[in-house]
Amino acid sequence: MIEQLKWRYSAKRMNGKSVPGDKIRFILDAIALAPSSMGLQPFQIMVIEDPKVRQEIYEKASRQPQILECSHLLVFCGWTSVQPQQIDEYITTISNTRNIPPIKLEDFKNSLLKFATSMTTDEIKEWTARQSYLALGTAIDAAALSHVDATPMEGFSASALDKLLGLPDRHMHSCVLLALGYRDVQKDEFAAAPKVRRQFEELFEMI
Amino acid sequence: MIEQLKWRYSAKRMNGKSVPGDKIRFILDAIALAPSSMGLQPFQIMVIEDPKVRQEIYEKASRQPQILECSHLLVFCGWTSVQPQQIDEYITTISNTRNIPPIKLEDFKNSLLKFATSMTTDEIKEWTARQSYLALGTAIDAAALSHVDATPMEGFSASALDKLLGLPDRHMHSCVLLALGYRDVQKDEFAAAPKVRRQFEELFEMI
Repeated sequence: MIEQLKWRYSAKRMNGKSVPGDKIRFILDAIALAPSSMGLQPFQIMVIEDPKVRQEIYEKASRQPQILECSHLLVFCGWTSVQPQQIDEYITTISNTRNIPPIKLEDFKNSLLKFATSMTTDEIKEWTARQSYLALGTAIDAAALSHVDATPMEGFSASALDKLLGLPDRHMHSCVLLALGYRDVQKDEFAAAPKVRRQFEELFEMI
Repeated sequence: MIEQLKWRYSAKRMNGKSVPGDKIRFILDAIALAPSSMGLQPFQIMVIEDPKVRQEIYEKASRQPQILECSHLLVFCGWTSVQPQQIDEYITTISNTRNIPPIKLEDFKNSLLKFATSMTTDEIKEWTARQSYLALGTAIDAAALSHVDATPMEGFSASALDKLLGLPDRHMHSCVLLALGYRDVQKDEFAAAPKVRRQFEELFEMI
């Protein structure tokens, strides 16, 4: 894994080539397995291949060339609220997967409801953004392991992107983007640049 | 990787056995390679093996048994401000690593300074928390790949933990914990439970 993580970098330019479907599926399967607060997975990921939609995103939300040059653009969308129905669905999934009668999950369900109603909208947005970033980390690792370039991107207009994807009506907000594709070694001056990282001793403190 | 991610789960009880140093080093090396906003890596990770310190954390910040039963407790600490000195150090590291004269990095340095001063303390804390969660995702993947159990933990008293570790004076705040160790299959009822995840079609929307 270390070799693959050293190979990866956040490509600034991509060459437009398509990532095969099985590799995309592998990356998405890894995302689905990432842990989250209480297992709720309070996000949805838009997997955008359609060039027209990516062109619109480029024009309205973020003029970063990878949006056009990537193969698939992932938009990590966190929930902006936790609906009682979503908690019900989660409890049903646990009940079915683990063959536990729903009545035995009542306490857990109530703790979820209490947690969900204890937060302001801003707090929920930050909480779901953090869960999205954790899953983003796994997506980046999975991409590196399958030799696919992956560029995480912030610095876009979240309000413009939210509007374009109709997220507010669906109680979601865009948190972060991940462009999947292949580096353009000719156009990207960073493709051959050595990786810059803080020293081990600065980053970690052994106690 | 998928098999290892299916094997992993967030162990609720651990058996106290030590994780060998080379595996800890592998996980930390993976964390160090995780990408971050503009490459700043605006966090530090405390790697706590000392049982006395873990006992104190357990008593004052979070009564979760993994804190005592794990081998190493990782505390992901985000910066609460970006000091000009930290930007200078980053620029020096880029200059040395890539053999670029500092003068050629002036524009980038100024954009970092502008970015750092454009945010409130709360915004910086959230931004560094998100970067920490991304690195947390990589830590969890690396642990799974080396067959080490890893339990991410929220729900602790950040203010108590910050005080205990002396973080405020160092312009840092604790964002999230990761207990590294080995599952206790006898004591943990979840050790044998099937993994619960939302359906692929619910989690991903193909556009």
